[in-house]
Amino acid sequence: MRTYDDYLSEIETYLKKVVEPHHPDNLYIPMQYTIEGGGKRLRPVLTLAACEALGGSMLEALNQSAGIELFHNFTLLHDDVMDRADMRRGRATVHRRFGESTAILSGDAMLTMATQLIVKGGTDSPTLLPQIRLFNRTAMEIYEGQQLDLDFEQRDDVTVEEYMEMIRLKTSVLLGCACAMGALIANADHKTVNAFYRYGEKLGLAFQLQDDLLDSFGDPIVFGKEIGGDIACDKKTWLLITALAEDETGELRNELQNPSPKDEKIRNVTRIYERLDLPERCRALVDNYVEQAINELNSIAMSHPARDFFSVLAENTRRRTY
Amino acid sequence: MRTYDDYLSEIETYLKKVVEPHHPDNLYIPMQYTIEGGGKRLRPVLTLAACEALGGSMLEALNQSAGIELFHNFTLLHDDVMDRADMRRGRATVHRRFGESTAILSGDAMLTMATQLIVKGGTDSPTLLPQIRLFNRTAMEIYEGQQLDLDFEQRDDVTVEEYMEMIRLKTSVLLGCACAMGALIANADHKTVNAFYRYGEKLGLAFQLQDDLLDSFGDPIVFGKEIGGDIACDKKTWLLITALAEDETGELRNELQNPSPKDEKIRNVTRIYERLDLPERCRALVDNYVEQAINELNSIAMSHPARDFFSVLAENTRRRTY
Repeated sequence: MRTYDDYLSEIETYLKKVVEPHHPDNLYIPMQYTIEGGGKRLRPVLTLAACEALGGSMLEALNQSAGIELFHNFTLLHDDVMDRADMRRGRATVHRRFGESTAILSGDAMLTMATQLIVKGGTDSPTLLPQIRLFNRTAMEIYEGQQLDLDFEQRDDVTVEEYMEMIRLKTSVLLGCACAMGALIANADHKTVNAFYRYGEKLGLAFQLQDDLLDSFGDPIVFGKEIGGDIACDKKTWLLITALAEDETGELRNELQNPSPKDEKIRNVTRIYERLDLPERCRALVDNYVEQAINELNSIAMSHPARDFFSVLAENTRRRTY
Repeated sequence: MRTYDDYLSEIETYLKKVVEPHHPDNLYIPMQYTIEGGGKRLRPVLTLAACEALGGSMLEALNQSAGIELFHNFTLLHDDVMDRADMRRGRATVHRRFGESTAILSGDAMLTMATQLIVKGGTDSPTLLPQIRLFNRTAMEIYEGQQLDLDFEQRDDVTVEEYMEMIRLKTSVLLGCACAMGALIANADHKTVNAFYRYGEKLGLAFQLQDDLLDSFGDPIVFGKEIGGDIACDKKTWLLITALAEDETGELRNELQNPSPKDEKIRNVTRIYERLDLPERCRALVDNYVEQAINELNSIAMSHPARDFFSVLAENTRRRTY
């Protein structure tokens, strides 16, 4: 079993090749710009590692893992257009830099290229069809999750259950897909593929809840962005939805309806969250999902170093501060 | 061999099933709205007819033909967002009706659903991989064509050759793909698949040039929209590009740089086109592509009624007034 950085370096090299621009430049340069924006490359690393952990070769999984990362970046690109976001990973978003039309079109092309990479990688595999189907089904679920997220902006009666289903679709299924893809490439049995899928899914839930938590309670220096962004724009996170459900005094609803100036609003809402013990309760939820993820590993036959790789990855999710 | 209307009615029924909405409604209802907008369904009819003409069964081609039509509608939907178009087929465009975010996201979902339909249709076929590859490659070419079209808006030195390559990519390759897909499903040999592809490609070029011509010289009642739309917005069509290249007096360039009021501008530019004999020359080009398309049919072994179906379809392109 290799290290995270080994997998990362393989995927970085391959991604660079995949997005080399050609004619017409204006279609391909935004893709290159997007991929050069970096990121943890968690999804493609999961694919490469799952494949190797189950006895497959990393090289067999390179196309599919690049396809999954390209797909992930396509969703970020289109989400940024929808959210009218100006910045992503410290740089101008694609639509700010290259214009909205090019952002939409380059995103479409990234989606098709991602599909091409899945097909290319699986061409000689007995699991080609399951790989393609998993990828397409996951893509549909992610759009559904994004639509629910958009719908939630217009609603003030979102339940915690609905929120968890939304983040499962919008975030977790792609981590599940990344893991299961690696298992399929290694030609693993159904039980193993499904267990790896659930590992990724639980990891994704932990990851998103940790993200919500850090946005309100992280260290701004370590987290790399202003704290309280979600609070400032009334984003329906686990924290806000839970607090609204328990807001017996009406103080939170009042703050949302007649908001104080931004910094004061962030302070007030943070205080309410603390009074309801939400940081601790959210941390407990993250812990719980991390444990569920690690438990899934028990039913998978793999070497100790392989098992450690995935359990350490899950442990790091709850420890992460950025 | 069935009639165009027979194929049309099959595809309409199947498309309705494909876009039946489910949760979350806001993602799926815009797809249904798009498909209900109608259209000639030329592409899926080509797939069904090509498959049957070569001895395949129409039912085997239904999923792929629906996938191609869904893909075509996805490109129209995203193009409308990019062009900020208000109307399509006499109704509000998706982004006007449902908002831009939903338009982008529903378009993404239509692209993935289209891919799913191609895969579903080809699952048990020996040509599954060629079908998927043809579809994905065509999609990439269409994005390239759309990007060139966007690029041309910013340029005033576009050549006729560049324009023809742009419309080949943006419009023709999907007609080529639709025909070749039908041939692949019927498990035809390479030569036949390629000849059918070229038939569709030439048909597409004729179709687009006829469209350019009708926009400036059609009968507004029959054409169903105002005449001169392309002229009013300086759209770089075959007519404008050719006229600019032959504008020895500088009259056309002057009209573009210091435009008269809209109706007068349309009259002036139309007069220049007529003086250069462009309507007749464009008609001759359309004729030429129609003949090239029909010639491709000669190398394909099929029944007389089948050959007639495709040659009449091509003939109708040059006669069409809407």
